[in-house]
Amino acid sequence: MKTQSRSLRVRLPVFLFVTQVAFVALYFAFVTYDEHGDARFQTNQTNPMHNAMYKDYPYFADIQVMIFLGFGCLLAFFRLYGFGGIVLNFLTATFAIQWAILVQGYFQFSYDGKIHLGVINLINAEFACAVVLISFGAVLGKTSPLQLLVMALLEVPVFAVTEWAVLKYLKINDAGGSILIHIFACYFGLGVTFMLYRPRLNEGHAKENSSYQSDILSVMGTLFLWVFWPSFNSSLTLKGDDQHRAVLHTFLGLSASTLTAFALSALMNKKGKFTMADVQNVTLAGGVTVGASVDMMISPAAAYALGMMGGTACMLGYKYLTPFLARRLRIQDQCGIHNLHGLTGLISCAAGICAILMATEEVYGPSLYEIFTHRAPVEGDPKLQELQRLIPGIQPGLGRTAREQALFQVAAVFSTIGLSALGGILTGFVLKLPFFASPSDDFCFDDEPFFEVPPDYDSPHRVRHTVTTEDSVA
Amino acid sequence: MKTQSRSLRVRLPVFLFVTQVAFVALYFAFVTYDEHGDARFQTNQTNPMHNAMYKDYPYFADIQVMIFLGFGCLLAFFRLYGFGGIVLNFLTATFAIQWAILVQGYFQFSYDGKIHLGVINLINAEFACAVVLISFGAVLGKTSPLQLLVMALLEVPVFAVTEWAVLKYLKINDAGGSILIHIFACYFGLGVTFMLYRPRLNEGHAKENSSYQSDILSVMGTLFLWVFWPSFNSSLTLKGDDQHRAVLHTFLGLSASTLTAFALSALMNKKGKFTMADVQNVTLAGGVTVGASVDMMISPAAAYALGMMGGTACMLGYKYLTPFLARRLRIQDQCGIHNLHGLTGLISCAAGICAILMATEEVYGPSLYEIFTHRAPVEGDPKLQELQRLIPGIQPGLGRTAREQALFQVAAVFSTIGLSALGGILTGFVLKLPFFASPSDDFCFDDEPFFEVPPDYDSPHRVRHTVTTEDSVA
Amino acid sequence: MKTQSRSLRVRLPVFLFVTQVAFVALYFAFVTYDEHGDARFQTNQTNPMHNAMYKDYPYFADIQVMIFLGFGCLLAFFRLYGFGGIVLNFLTATFAIQWAILVQGYFQFSYDGKIHLGVINLINAEFACAVVLISFGAVLGKTSPLQLLVMALLEVPVFAVTEWAVLKYLKINDAGGSILIHIFACYFGLGVTFMLYRPRLNEGHAKENSSYQSDILSVMGTLFLWVFWPSFNSSLTLKGDDQHRAVLHTFLGLSASTLTAFALSALMNKKGKFTMADVQNVTLAGGVTVGASVDMMISPAAAYALGMMGGTACMLGYKYLTPFLARRLRIQDQCGIHNLHGLTGLISCAAGICAILMATEEVYGPSLYEIFTHRAPVEGDPKLQELQRLIPGIQPGLGRTAREQALFQVAAVFSTIGLSALGGILTGFVLKLPFFASPSDDFCFDDEPFFEVPPDYDSPHRVRHTVTTEDSVA
Repeated sequence: MKTQSRSLRVRLPVFLFVTQVAFVALYFAFVTYDEHGDARFQTNQTNPMHNAMYKDYPYFADIQVMIFLGFGCLLAFFRLYGFGGIVLNFLTATFAIQWAILVQGYFQFSYDGKIHLGVINLINAEFACAVVLISFGAVLGKTSPLQLLVMALLEVPVFAVTEWAVLKYLKINDAGGSILIHIFACYFGLGVTFMLYRPRLNEGHAKENSSYQSDILSVMGTLFLWVFWPSFNSSLTLKGDDQHRAVLHTFLGLSASTLTAFALSALMNKKGKFTMADVQNVTLAGGVTVGASVDMMISPAAAYALGMMGGTACMLGYKYLTPFLARRLRIQDQCGIHNLHGLTGLISCAAGICAILMATEEVYGPSLYEIFTHRAPVEGDPKLQELQRLIPGIQPGLGRTAREQALFQVAAVFSTIGLSALGGILTGFVLKLPFFASPSDDFCFDDEPFFEVPPDYDSPHRVRHTVTTEDSVA
Repeated sequence: MKTQSRSLRVRLPVFLFVTQVAFVALYFAFVTYDEHGDARFQTNQTNPMHNAMYKDYPYFADIQVMIFLGFGCLLAFFRLYGFGGIVLNFLTATFAIQWAILVQGYFQFSYDGKIHLGVINLINAEFACAVVLISFGAVLGKTSPLQLLVMALLEVPVFAVTEWAVLKYLKINDAGGSILIHIFACYFGLGVTFMLYRPRLNEGHAKENSSYQSDILSVMGTLFLWVFWPSFNSSLTLKGDDQHRAVLHTFLGLSASTLTAFALSALMNKKGKFTMADVQNVTLAGGVTVGASVDMMISPAAAYALGMMGGTACMLGYKYLTPFLARRLRIQDQCGIHNLHGLTGLISCAAGICAILMATEEVYGPSLYEIFTHRAPVEGDPKLQELQRLIPGIQPGLGRTAREQALFQVAAVFSTIGLSALGGILTGFVLKLPFFASPSDDFCFDDEPFFEVPPDYDSPHRVRHTVTTEDSVA
Repeated sequence: MKTQSRSLRVRLPVFLFVTQVAFVALYFAFVTYDEHGDARFQTNQTNPMHNAMYKDYPYFADIQVMIFLGFGCLLAFFRLYGFGGIVLNFLTATFAIQWAILVQGYFQFSYDGKIHLGVINLINAEFACAVVLISFGAVLGKTSPLQLLVMALLEVPVFAVTEWAVLKYLKINDAGGSILIHIFACYFGLGVTFMLYRPRLNEGHAKENSSYQSDILSVMGTLFLWVFWPSFNSSLTLKGDDQHRAVLHTFLGLSASTLTAFALSALMNKKGKFTMADVQNVTLAGGVTVGASVDMMISPAAAYALGMMGGTACMLGYKYLTPFLARRLRIQDQCGIHNLHGLTGLISCAAGICAILMATEEVYGPSLYEIFTHRAPVEGDPKLQELQRLIPGIQPGLGRTAREQALFQVAAVFSTIGLSALGGILTGFVLKLPFFASPSDDFCFDDEPFFEVPPDYDSPHRVRHTVTTEDSVA
């Protein structure tokens, strides 16, 4: 007990202070404004309302709500771990974003020896943060705050390198981040939780339950994610009709997975009742399954069908796969991220590949080469000039065929799974080092182990009520 | 008991699967992108930032929050029906929007044999969804989820036909939807609840209470609705100064009804205390009363006065009219939608008619004929050309006088009330058919009858506390 | 007891009705639309999408969420005063905004004998409202609703006069409102709470505690404020790169103060655990400390450092200064606003002054004279013409040097502190007049004294549970 409190009392603040000082030094040395945030770039040609801020900030604000309120409330479903869910989500997210600004900035936004900062970097950093929070779902209740921060510290660079390598060398289409966000986050998280295996968790434990209030809070988290998911999926698409489609597809996919979730939840319950965990999780599956093809001309019906498939796969995963993984493969997936992000991510990738193979100029017109930039003719090709006469914005590409692009997508899926699982396992190994590990294996069996709780606290877990029947009180 | 669970276990999933398959087939056959979402329409003239998405999406996102979080939390005020409120709202809303996209699409957005989908359709569908959710308020706790879905299935087409007929043939001004949304939803809901009369509800029942936590959740729902109501009322006005006025009027109306609600709540309470139900509902009345004239030049003071009148009427309705309706007319209005949407809707219509009668070119300038399009001179009238020189956007109209327009508004009110009440009664009749009806008349007296609740659930309704006085514990 | 209920039953409604009638009369006599909301101003030159509404409304909507949901939930942390926090916040905020539209309108937006209303006035009024709500934090639980409204009635004009005088005569830079909002609100609130000194509060009292549910609600309030604070700080900056920087700095400052808060919270707790009050308050400190220099070229690292400084000062303030103020100076700062708004506001002002002293044309380019308008050359200066060739929007200024500007900033800080403290003390004096004062000194020791609470209410404060150990129940 003493060691544990020491770990928090000393190691956590020390870790935070050291990283903070390092971060502020790195920001001081390397981070400056991009051309939309720098006063020097203003000239008599500048129209302030054309600042990139006005394209990006609304999406950033929506994603902020998803990260801090959506994920936070959703993760607060454990009866004895509500603070742990919402507050450690706050801590981890903030840390991950600060760190991702630096790491992604180095890989994607640096030139002239400086990282150039704008709201667009913040959006990218929130995506990296979402990756960490999804992985957090796999180990919810199994880690100390310090371990969570160390996980973020390691996961962000692995993610940033994978993202950079896949985008730079494989050059894939993945507007909604199905491969880079959901699949990466899922297999990384599974790798970590595999290393942090706790036999006692499989026995089940009374404290690992939700309560009435925590379930309602968690549904609110789901609703925040549900409502703003179109902003998430569309924030990095091309502007114009591409972003418009991304919003439509995400909405349709989510609504289809929601109805599927309700139908299956009642069907698979003995008494025909809805299970709250299904309402909280499976309803969101459609947002992931439409991800990889979210900006393509897949048709509204296809988005709808993808939502239904996602809801079904996710539901079956919760029912059959999660217990199997926990018992046979020692992978305890606390929030079931493999169902909501892994299975659905794979469906999304498959759908994306189909959409790529079926994409033709007849359906897209010349803007085919804006969406699939790597299929655009190479520099000097006369076809390129012809296209540029139709749409001036088309850039020279690599002249890939649809099939070639599809193969690169496949390669991206496999390399992302490999890198993320490996990274997760190594991270889990580090977390088990005596310095970071906690002496107790039983965090999640304690009541809010990381929060000061007054002795007379009027809370569901400090107070045990004398249970009587209704009638005996009336 | 067995029949009830069978109804949920079998009929609800079957209903959802059948409608889902039908919907996806209809989307496949008939739904395509509108010109702002279709890649083929992009040319060298296209400015991506002029895509309609950027005008519509911010309002859509705000309305999403109102529908899913606002209504959801507001309806969760019953102590034993919190899941029922927030989760069945989620289910019903999603279903209604999917269905409304098809039905409204057929009536309003179809040409060339296809429904053309854009974010603007989603906004319209969310309005249809709001109609269903308001009616849901009348029968809260009296219906099974299956009945709710059947109600949505029937109400959406009746609404869409009414909307189409009123807009096409009567050509009214109703920017905030006071007639088409609030009055329609109210009388439809009253029709349904009239058919679902339950004598025992009038006796009062201990379980039909709120709790401390559920009341706070419900206030949060009110606040979500309050904060984003200006977006709701202004989302379908003309862009520019019209939308600007709609925001100002909605804000002023809401703030006036809020202060009126607090004043009357304290005044009408024996101990001078505030009643939470008033805070949750009456504060919102001003958003409805400004609706029909929300984009007109009524002056800020008029919006203020409308808010005060709405708050007063709504409060008196809760106090005197709701009990009267329940006891004498067998209309059990569970959430009091007749006060918040019916009475206020009628006030709003009257105010709209006054505003129409007083609208002159002196006050509006030539843009009078943009707001009141049907008062614009007919094609070929020399006055039309003169106006178009001043504001090129003015379209030829019907040359109606103010008085003629007012008469059409009156006709719209009466036909909407008639159609909605009739539709509601017929819908209530269908819901009572043995196939949909539940064997038990007492849904709302059960604890969360539609949700799986573990036996050791730490919830306010599973646990009865031994009540002691404060002092005896200290 | 009778007098108290009479005060609420009679005096509160009377106060509200009288002010409402006065307001609506004033709106009728003096308030009209500004040129962006008036239909008459539309011509064939008008582009509706250039209406000011589209620049202002998104920020207004975000600030609405902060005011009504953010402040509301944050103030609901007392176990026995949750309604009091969230609902009285709703009441007070609505009243303050209505009143501020009139008072600020008179000082800032009136010409031709009319107050010209647009969304921009609403944003300004919400700022005045934020001032009142911050001051409310100082007296939380110590005032009746009537006293709160009287406080708002008095504070808004004192604030509006101070704002007008400082902006008109001292002409300072304070984009994020550190001086005019945070410092003013803090010292006004301290003045009021000083006058409302209650000896018994210093003894501590069991009822002045939070509960598990109220702490989670309060964290949600914090998160709403945290997420939308960039909109708050940037809503009144210049458009373009200035607003872009304001968003970046606010985000960085908040994230730095958040990590600092967590580190110090664990470090200063005996068991190394996090304290919820720190998570709820100290995390927000960075939003204030970056305020005065939020639109300047201070560099991302400086925003980061300001966040760390703010978090540290705020945390130490809670630990050492708040108890000192309460015991020695009889200033009972219920929510610790002096830490979150006072100390941080002073840091922010100091940082702003440094940023002003270091601002050069090398760093800012010619747009230096847009941000620091009063440093621009005076009318007729040839340098002005040269600058206007580079950036046409530069206006003639006062030709102040950096040092002169800094001195005016210092003068503004001191005069704001003086005026606000004086105003607060006088307001506190009025609140203690027998007519407004409540006979009982012990509001905050009652259970929700201002709300109707049914006798069988299933609430944490009506029910005392028989506390048993976990094991004895299993």
